[in-house]
Amino acid sequence: MAAFDIASLRFDARGLIPAIAQARDGTVLMLAWMSADSLAETLRTGDVTYWSRSRGELWRKGATSGHVQRLVELRIDCDRDALLLVVDQTGPACHTNRPACFFTAVRDGQEVILTEPVAT
Amino acid sequence: MAAFDIASLRFDARGLIPAIAQARDGTVLMLAWMSADSLAETLRTGDVTYWSRSRGELWRKGATSGHVQRLVELRIDCDRDALLLVVDQTGPACHTNRPACFFTAVRDGQEVILTEPVAT
Repeated sequence: MAAFDIASLRFDARGLIPAIAQARDGTVLMLAWMSADSLAETLRTGDVTYWSRSRGELWRKGATSGHVQRLVELRIDCDRDALLLVVDQTGPACHTNRPACFFTAVRDGQEVILTEPVAT
Repeated sequence: MAAFDIASLRFDARGLIPAIAQARDGTVLMLAWMSADSLAETLRTGDVTYWSRSRGELWRKGATSGHVQRLVELRIDCDRDALLLVVDQTGPACHTNRPACFFTAVRDGQEVILTEPVAT
């Protein structure tokens, strides 16, 4: 065991690292990006906080929608350049109101929508 | 339904898109990167093929180790800038010979190794 140091992660040239959010049942909810600050905020508060590349600011997931993610466990990959966040998701994870963002499958060369938006 | 066109994906400035490989049991095996060519090769052959950023070439997973990934299903996220690959993994997915790359957890500020290498 060693003390975890955020600076030991391999952030990219923009200072970001990809983070996969996974529900406890194994569902991959989404992929987003974290800065060192957003990861520190996530660990400090337990509320998963990403870096919004479009807005250029910290993005506490669910801050406006209420569809928050509580961090269950942070995991790091072998190259220290990707994160896996096991989370408890309140409401749908996707901005389309679907439970997860990966709702489009490619089957026989066609796009197939696997899930519909849920009522919120 | 619409025909799937690789060019409809949002590749980054390097021409790459992050791809999460997930086993059928829900385990997140790894995160790697695909170019348009590597995705086309994956769809053509069924053998998951990434783009190796370190070597700057197509990387058919398991080409040297034998630890291949057969594509079960390709999924696309809502923003079309991330992929989820459901796969059948032969042998360990991680180059450390662990089943998956996310074997390090952060608990109470300490790094904890969750799984050990398997004999291959």
